[in-house]
Amino acid sequence: MSSVDLLNKTAELVAVASESFSEAQITEHIQNELQAHQHLELTRIGDNLVARTQLGRANRVILAGHTDTVPANGNAQPRIEGDHLWGVGSADMKGGLAVMLKLAEQHTQPAVDVTYVFYAREEVASEHSGLGELFDQRPDLLEGDVALLGEPTDGQIEAGCQGAMRFSITLKGKRAHTARAWMGSNAIHRLAGLLTAIDAYVPRQPVLLGCHFHEALQVVRVSGGVAGNVVPDSAQIELAHRFAPDRSADQAEQHVRDLLLPYLGDDDEVELLDLSPAAYPAVEHPCITSLIERHDLGVRAKLGWTDVARFAEHGVPAVNFGPGDSALAHTPQEHLVGESIRRTYSALDDLLRIGP
Amino acid sequence: MSSVDLLNKTAELVAVASESFSEAQITEHIQNELQAHQHLELTRIGDNLVARTQLGRANRVILAGHTDTVPANGNAQPRIEGDHLWGVGSADMKGGLAVMLKLAEQHTQPAVDVTYVFYAREEVASEHSGLGELFDQRPDLLEGDVALLGEPTDGQIEAGCQGAMRFSITLKGKRAHTARAWMGSNAIHRLAGLLTAIDAYVPRQPVLLGCHFHEALQVVRVSGGVAGNVVPDSAQIELAHRFAPDRSADQAEQHVRDLLLPYLGDDDEVELLDLSPAAYPAVEHPCITSLIERHDLGVRAKLGWTDVARFAEHGVPAVNFGPGDSALAHTPQEHLVGESIRRTYSALDDLLRIGP
Repeated sequence: MSSVDLLNKTAELVAVASESFSEAQITEHIQNELQAHQHLELTRIGDNLVARTQLGRANRVILAGHTDTVPANGNAQPRIEGDHLWGVGSADMKGGLAVMLKLAEQHTQPAVDVTYVFYAREEVASEHSGLGELFDQRPDLLEGDVALLGEPTDGQIEAGCQGAMRFSITLKGKRAHTARAWMGSNAIHRLAGLLTAIDAYVPRQPVLLGCHFHEALQVVRVSGGVAGNVVPDSAQIELAHRFAPDRSADQAEQHVRDLLLPYLGDDDEVELLDLSPAAYPAVEHPCITSLIERHDLGVRAKLGWTDVARFAEHGVPAVNFGPGDSALAHTPQEHLVGESIRRTYSALDDLLRIGP
Repeated sequence: MSSVDLLNKTAELVAVASESFSEAQITEHIQNELQAHQHLELTRIGDNLVARTQLGRANRVILAGHTDTVPANGNAQPRIEGDHLWGVGSADMKGGLAVMLKLAEQHTQPAVDVTYVFYAREEVASEHSGLGELFDQRPDLLEGDVALLGEPTDGQIEAGCQGAMRFSITLKGKRAHTARAWMGSNAIHRLAGLLTAIDAYVPRQPVLLGCHFHEALQVVRVSGGVAGNVVPDSAQIELAHRFAPDRSADQAEQHVRDLLLPYLGDDDEVELLDLSPAAYPAVEHPCITSLIERHDLGVRAKLGWTDVARFAEHGVPAVNFGPGDSALAHTPQEHLVGESIRRTYSALDDLLRIGP
């Protein structure tokens, strides 16, 4: 498949606006394209579309990608210049969708069974995820040996992902007039010890199956105060923790709670606001190993959270592998280079032809 | 003057609602009462009323009180039970106004010239002050040797007052994704050092002319944060400082700035939000000395800010001296005890009859 073909296909997808929650049109577009193909079994669930081969192969590979984009920023219209395609979603991740569509059309008799998953609402809060909706309603559609997500990794393997959790921590004090401050207890002052401990925290950087992770513990919000002449009786921080996949979510939560404990009194409160589990790097799965070895792919840890964790949570080892530069995603400069999408297509084409 | 007369007079004033900014009616009420008296020269400025004797006495004493109350809280109607008057403003400070009115009516030939100042909007932000309005428009009306404010001190002398200032302090950082926290600099974490220093601050407690002051340095507000997955690049605190009157406002400001300096970087910002000067205790003025000695009054420092500082700033030594318990002010339980207002009246009556 030539770079030109692949960039053109991506441009076609970029031209269909598909901001999160407005994805009916892009899903129609993909469905119209795929339903001509007899080798694919299509299932539409809401704005999600699953296309599967049913050839009874020994392995089933899932190729998955989200259809939504962030709002355009002067880059709603695709524009090809030489080997570059400019436009919102060109990297994140309509390039990945274009690769999936081309593979789905080309491979009528792949060496592995393939499930192509086009899902909605990835760029918004986790609770809205179309992939979550699919796992809830039709988990059978998502069964497979390994999953590859087309998130932009510039054709390298980004393996596993760190988990994420956020806590709300409320410290209590006693209200008083500032003219008689010693009658009260300043809850904002009580943050001093807690913030000092968090600031001094040295995050772990474990290397797991060759992937270098880097944890984080960061206060992302702080608030407190009653009025300009009142000693405040409450102060709140929101604490974000990213943890490597050698810890379970429970272990990571306990680790943070242990760290907080010395700074908490009886009336203080710690609440877990949300939690996304980590995923261990799936680089030992034969399909992934073959992909890496045959194409000499770089392998690195995924530090941000992606839907590989959702697959891993359901027992399907998963990695990120797609065209485009993630650093450009969500920027007005978002673009895709032909060489990047060609290399990605070529590696997956090879996997589907030969198998693991 | 009997307790009953004084409580009845206070009840009459409580019955006229006079929430801040709605004081025209109470000012009319006082004006109607006083204009019958030939020995008083009345001047109305907005909702402020000044009544003066012009007898050419060696000394002029200013008796001043604010006409506004905080909003009623189920206690809009005055109610007398035995020796107690219940109702909004009974202590803060319609008891003081009642004493002023009685004195103004009784003393046609006082031993000192007297200026009675009834002023508006004390219970709201300083910029709205009716006393400030008078000082701006007719400072000549407020000239005198000493001023006594009828704020509730239960008939004791509360001398001087602490100054107050508030700062806004903004610490800067560098924004980053929490998945790559080490690329940023967390502005909220930077609060740790600053809060530790402020929490460890030991406020001075100077004793000035027998009055025990007690300073304060309190963070009254904190805020910061961008989103749950962003290392924040800005964090802000609001810092309140109360300072004793042995420091000028400039000295107190410099003291706080010196304290903050080690925790500030080049991009951080410190802004002085507002400033109310302190007032030195005026207990050495002959009028006040006589009052204290003849009636064996208790003398203590005023820790909160009051308008004595406004008089002191204009060169008029001032103290707080009024009936009622300030701890009850602004509460639904606000009330005035007859004995308290009778004692206050009696001491001032004596001062106006005999002089210093």
